[in-house]
Amino acid sequence: MNRRYEELTGPEILDRICGSSTLLLPIGAVEQHGPHLPLAVDHIIAHETATAVVESVGEELDVWLLPTLSISKSNEHAWSPGTLWFSAATMMSILRDLGRAVASTGAERLVLLNGHGGNTTLLNTALRELRLEFGLKTFLVHPSVPPAYGGVSNASELGMGIHGGLNETSVFMHLRPDLVDLSKAERKVPEALADNQFVKFGGPVMFGWLSNDFDAAGYIGDPTGANTDLGKQLFEANVAHLGAQMSEIATFDFGR
Amino acid sequence: MNRRYEELTGPEILDRICGSSTLLLPIGAVEQHGPHLPLAVDHIIAHETATAVVESVGEELDVWLLPTLSISKSNEHAWSPGTLWFSAATMMSILRDLGRAVASTGAERLVLLNGHGGNTTLLNTALRELRLEFGLKTFLVHPSVPPAYGGVSNASELGMGIHGGLNETSVFMHLRPDLVDLSKAERKVPEALADNQFVKFGGPVMFGWLSNDFDAAGYIGDPTGANTDLGKQLFEANVAHLGAQMSEIATFDFGR
Amino acid sequence: MNRRYEELTGPEILDRICGSSTLLLPIGAVEQHGPHLPLAVDHIIAHETATAVVESVGEELDVWLLPTLSISKSNEHAWSPGTLWFSAATMMSILRDLGRAVASTGAERLVLLNGHGGNTTLLNTALRELRLEFGLKTFLVHPSVPPAYGGVSNASELGMGIHGGLNETSVFMHLRPDLVDLSKAERKVPEALADNQFVKFGGPVMFGWLSNDFDAAGYIGDPTGANTDLGKQLFEANVAHLGAQMSEIATFDFGR
Amino acid sequence: MNRRYEELTGPEILDRICGSSTLLLPIGAVEQHGPHLPLAVDHIIAHETATAVVESVGEELDVWLLPTLSISKSNEHAWSPGTLWFSAATMMSILRDLGRAVASTGAERLVLLNGHGGNTTLLNTALRELRLEFGLKTFLVHPSVPPAYGGVSNASELGMGIHGGLNETSVFMHLRPDLVDLSKAERKVPEALADNQFVKFGGPVMFGWLSNDFDAAGYIGDPTGANTDLGKQLFEANVAHLGAQMSEIATFDFGR
Amino acid sequence: MNRRYEELTGPEILDRICGSSTLLLPIGAVEQHGPHLPLAVDHIIAHETATAVVESVGEELDVWLLPTLSISKSNEHAWSPGTLWFSAATMMSILRDLGRAVASTGAERLVLLNGHGGNTTLLNTALRELRLEFGLKTFLVHPSVPPAYGGVSNASELGMGIHGGLNETSVFMHLRPDLVDLSKAERKVPEALADNQFVKFGGPVMFGWLSNDFDAAGYIGDPTGANTDLGKQLFEANVAHLGAQMSEIATFDFGR
Amino acid sequence: MNRRYEELTGPEILDRICGSSTLLLPIGAVEQHGPHLPLAVDHIIAHETATAVVESVGEELDVWLLPTLSISKSNEHAWSPGTLWFSAATMMSILRDLGRAVASTGAERLVLLNGHGGNTTLLNTALRELRLEFGLKTFLVHPSVPPAYGGVSNASELGMGIHGGLNETSVFMHLRPDLVDLSKAERKVPEALADNQFVKFGGPVMFGWLSNDFDAAGYIGDPTGANTDLGKQLFEANVAHLGAQMSEIATFDFGR
Repeated sequence: MNRRYEELTGPEILDRICGSSTLLLPIGAVEQHGPHLPLAVDHIIAHETATAVVESVGEELDVWLLPTLSISKSNEHAWSPGTLWFSAATMMSILRDLGRAVASTGAERLVLLNGHGGNTTLLNTALRELRLEFGLKTFLVHPSVPPAYGGVSNASELGMGIHGGLNETSVFMHLRPDLVDLSKAERKVPEALADNQFVKFGGPVMFGWLSNDFDAAGYIGDPTGANTDLGKQLFEANVAHLGAQMSEIATFDFGR
Repeated sequence: MNRRYEELTGPEILDRICGSSTLLLPIGAVEQHGPHLPLAVDHIIAHETATAVVESVGEELDVWLLPTLSISKSNEHAWSPGTLWFSAATMMSILRDLGRAVASTGAERLVLLNGHGGNTTLLNTALRELRLEFGLKTFLVHPSVPPAYGGVSNASELGMGIHGGLNETSVFMHLRPDLVDLSKAERKVPEALADNQFVKFGGPVMFGWLSNDFDAAGYIGDPTGANTDLGKQLFEANVAHLGAQMSEIATFDFGR
Repeated sequence: MNRRYEELTGPEILDRICGSSTLLLPIGAVEQHGPHLPLAVDHIIAHETATAVVESVGEELDVWLLPTLSISKSNEHAWSPGTLWFSAATMMSILRDLGRAVASTGAERLVLLNGHGGNTTLLNTALRELRLEFGLKTFLVHPSVPPAYGGVSNASELGMGIHGGLNETSVFMHLRPDLVDLSKAERKVPEALADNQFVKFGGPVMFGWLSNDFDAAGYIGDPTGANTDLGKQLFEANVAHLGAQMSEIATFDFGR
Repeated sequence: MNRRYEELTGPEILDRICGSSTLLLPIGAVEQHGPHLPLAVDHIIAHETATAVVESVGEELDVWLLPTLSISKSNEHAWSPGTLWFSAATMMSILRDLGRAVASTGAERLVLLNGHGGNTTLLNTALRELRLEFGLKTFLVHPSVPPAYGGVSNASELGMGIHGGLNETSVFMHLRPDLVDLSKAERKVPEALADNQFVKFGGPVMFGWLSNDFDAAGYIGDPTGANTDLGKQLFEANVAHLGAQMSEIATFDFGR
Repeated sequence: MNRRYEELTGPEILDRICGSSTLLLPIGAVEQHGPHLPLAVDHIIAHETATAVVESVGEELDVWLLPTLSISKSNEHAWSPGTLWFSAATMMSILRDLGRAVASTGAERLVLLNGHGGNTTLLNTALRELRLEFGLKTFLVHPSVPPAYGGVSNASELGMGIHGGLNETSVFMHLRPDLVDLSKAERKVPEALADNQFVKFGGPVMFGWLSNDFDAAGYIGDPTGANTDLGKQLFEANVAHLGAQMSEIATFDFGR
Repeated sequence: MNRRYEELTGPEILDRICGSSTLLLPIGAVEQHGPHLPLAVDHIIAHETATAVVESVGEELDVWLLPTLSISKSNEHAWSPGTLWFSAATMMSILRDLGRAVASTGAERLVLLNGHGGNTTLLNTALRELRLEFGLKTFLVHPSVPPAYGGVSNASELGMGIHGGLNETSVFMHLRPDLVDLSKAERKVPEALADNQFVKFGGPVMFGWLSNDFDAAGYIGDPTGANTDLGKQLFEANVAHLGAQMSEIATFDFGR
């Protein structure tokens, strides 16, 4: 059965979408990813991952796939000509408008599947805004998998392969090998950060950064060893992991 | 050669996009179109039309295809659960943000290819905003073809087949026959308007309307005679016509 | 009988304005019109035209004249010191606030009589916003007359006498001959545009422009032949034509 | 010599407006004023007063009359159907846009002549905003005259004739006797306030109020004794007084 | 009894705050005050004054002390590095959000105790906004005392000791002698203004100014004679005077 | 030496604040915390923690303490009368205004010390906004300590003592024992969440929640065992831990 929301008719929305339905919104980005990857990386990964998740568990869990939001808040790459980015205010307005529309269907659950790390905190803020204003149950998931679910730890990147690094490049190679040029990839790991105890990616002190703060190339990680085998393995693990998350989401309640 | 903007890398943007380049932004909508058509009609028509135009003339005219904006200002369908719509303010913010990003590439021309009539006046307003703020040459085109270029006049619809009517349904059947159910289509022509001399679609008195002002079904036109032959003919004429328009746009200058 | 809205008292609003009433808002502009015309052209034309229309048909059709909005969105002339202009956001806020106030009276119809072409698309957008938010029936009319109603076609201007050209200058000379100095007028027709098939005023490709894109003088047309006889003829035809439009508006319904 | 700003042409703005020029913006209101006065009171008083001031001192002091802003922030009368009012945010946007335009002319002084008390604090706030953002010298004056300059003290109104009371009604009768109906006027003085030491109009404790907080009739004062003689005397004194103020404004500098 | 609002628990809010309660919001500023005073002057004076008022009359009048808003709209000092200031729009948003929260408690009266003159007109505007939107009775008071209540007239400052002058410096010395350095104080009275009949502080013509318009030092008045005796006398008189104002506020009604 | 920013004079800001200075902004909240704790919990903890940190390391690291922002975005408690909360838009405006002011001083580092978990994602978003717009190095720290630094793991709360639970209540008892009433505390742990693998506090699926989604009492955790010994131990560990973080922040650079 087709689970693409936009392929329903208006009357079908009333028939098919109900309180038990979950709507899944993939959110990508169109932003520089260094010389080895195209702008579309996050757009394509979010879209393909969400599509695979809905193919896998959509029927069982009554999940519907919303059209992918291809562009989002990529202002850490504003310095790079060509990056398409929405301001924080525009992005919040988009989410508010979509939350209002989703609430009109009678669905109670909206899941944001976010392919761009630069959105995470804003989307997390939006979860509460939409819950408060429209009464939706709101969730945010990411298409990456922790080591316990099959992800690799990437010690070689010192845990900092966060933008155009080994895992992302590999997953993207699996999806679109024609768009990757590893001959242009180098190791771009901000080694200095690794010595920090607190101020580092995932550390207890959060910090503001732009993608050219570390290196003019604008990517962060070591994609040189990327390969499609790893990409396939990660992608499939991600989809399986997200399926498990969607399963818990589909029956989640606050228990009050 | 691939002309999808988002498939370029950051450094390639600098190499490939320049003052003579034209960037083409398809704008769709995800909104109710009656019981015979899915929400995605405008999204898919805008996307497919723009893709075909770029395939046809992109190389010759140095046109690049931006990612399709699937959702837009569909508030004339706000009454219909499931329609995804941005407010006028959100839509204007989106366009402003994109205009700023496009201007950063060095391209001088931005073309909006608008698949949803409800956007036309706002987009037209935005043309000047983006020209004034970012210095871009801005253009707005539509994927429909006037009679002189192969379109049919649809006298049977009294010229009012504006939403889910004969032409749109036919074009969409050509693109996605699996998503059309003509058995649910009826004639929904607001006959009363036809007697008006001034207050009518395309008349000298513009008027505010919502899509359920005329009929609870929310579509306007007579799709009952839609067919893929007509759809194919219209689509191909549209693409050819837009190619001619893009050709003029590519060399347009104010002559000062 | 006096039909000036602002000359009613508060209690009279309740007595005199009702569902069958139509409120007419003239919208002008205070913007450069070249060296032969004052900034006030659109302000005065909108005001005088609306006044004459209400004198002509106000009593019969229950039309009330709102105070003229003298300044509006003239940002195509932002380059010209002295032009008074509201941003698109300010203009939309003004219209929203006025729509809310008009809806409070019980009148169901609001007509915008727009004397400045630079407003048209934004006002057209606002028609739907006000209909959706306040339930008003909203209309937009213009004080210019098509050839079929007595207007001249101005082949000499190649159809491009859109700002300070023959017709506008003539109408204004009829109203305020003391404020016109034809000795400073020249032919300023952007001839290059005339060869365009698509990208031209009124052509199928809309485009963003500023009034100094074509010529540093900032006006567009050929006012050299302007005269009060033509102006009188056009003005009277405009008023008659608008009266006919108001008549249709006064009884307009969606027929549902 | 004509001193109406909007009757200048664009090139004349450059010639005639300079650093020594003062631009005067009359600000009215269209709001309920009780059953004896029309909505237009503040609009007409501001317009007529400003016009007379410029006739009196414009040539000598190089003052130019901007078009009257007829509608403003009248939300204390939002309860009364028909009152046309801008929100505080809209009003501030209007002033900012006008400040930007005025600054583009090279004039250094902008004077707001405010006919509606409900605007005073917002306009006063705007004086600083425009000075900070555009470098203008900004001023706010009012068309009412203190006792020392010929005004009457109105002890009979306990100093509370602030909206539709004796002075305002008299001045308006002088300007437009056809629009006043004293037979509908009553004494509407909020006597209870008079006993207050602090919380009262002009007292040290400012307080928020709406015009129907005191009485459902919505006006405040005692217009029953209004007459054109008093109105004429007040109007002429006001104009003279404002002329003196303009004279000081025209040469005002901060002395640094 | 403790009258600090923030020291109540959530359930106590419901028990203790009711229609007869008055909530008092002290509003300070953190802005340059010349070389003899710290940025905190307005913050500390507003906080200490409000605290003393509530200690004095809180129990009797059912007044609750809200947490002090330390920073506000100090844009007349935007030129001075270090001044912390909110834009007018931010400040209005803060007040609107707080008004909404206060209205949720069931209290009917909100008093703003404003320690920074640069806020006065904006706060006065907000009084009406909050009354209209949330139905609150709203008041604005200031911690300074007129001569009739024990204040000194400061003829030596020509009535212009408005920022860092004799009275303010003295009051602050009383509160925080450790933070005052009179050795750096000079007489900074804009003498030129004193000759003005209209355009002056408290004059009938309001004008926009920044604190460095008069003198690069950025303070206005003559603090050289400041002393703690005067400060103590003024502070105590202010508190007593505000207590009397609060007493009238606590029973204020519109009398309708 | 005094390190309170607001106790500097304007000229001292220029002398004392420079590129090596770090400005520390404590951010609290005034929101319901159940029946056993006052609204002020986050305000007081943020203020006291930041004060202690600056006392400890301010001199050594050139840290300056900004005035505490007592109120913030507490909209998860909007349902609870009395909670004072700023909308997300207001909060972002406040941070933007403060970022602009901080950047004017020449300091390069701004640290937000956030006492209210509901702000975390918005503040994290703001870090990038301020870095991009004003060039500041921006950081976000929290006054809680992980187990490795002396915190307790609270297995008894199933890791969900996030609002008014054991640790927070203990720390607050240490600071203000007079404001805690443990006799009203109960165990309020949302046990159902503990069984979730993904959708839980700190789990990989983020979710939108309001504080009364789990229980009408609005607090989350088990404060019944709270005590001042634990509170003192945690507070001191927090301060020490934050001092270490500030030390790394003070010399942090991107290494490019």
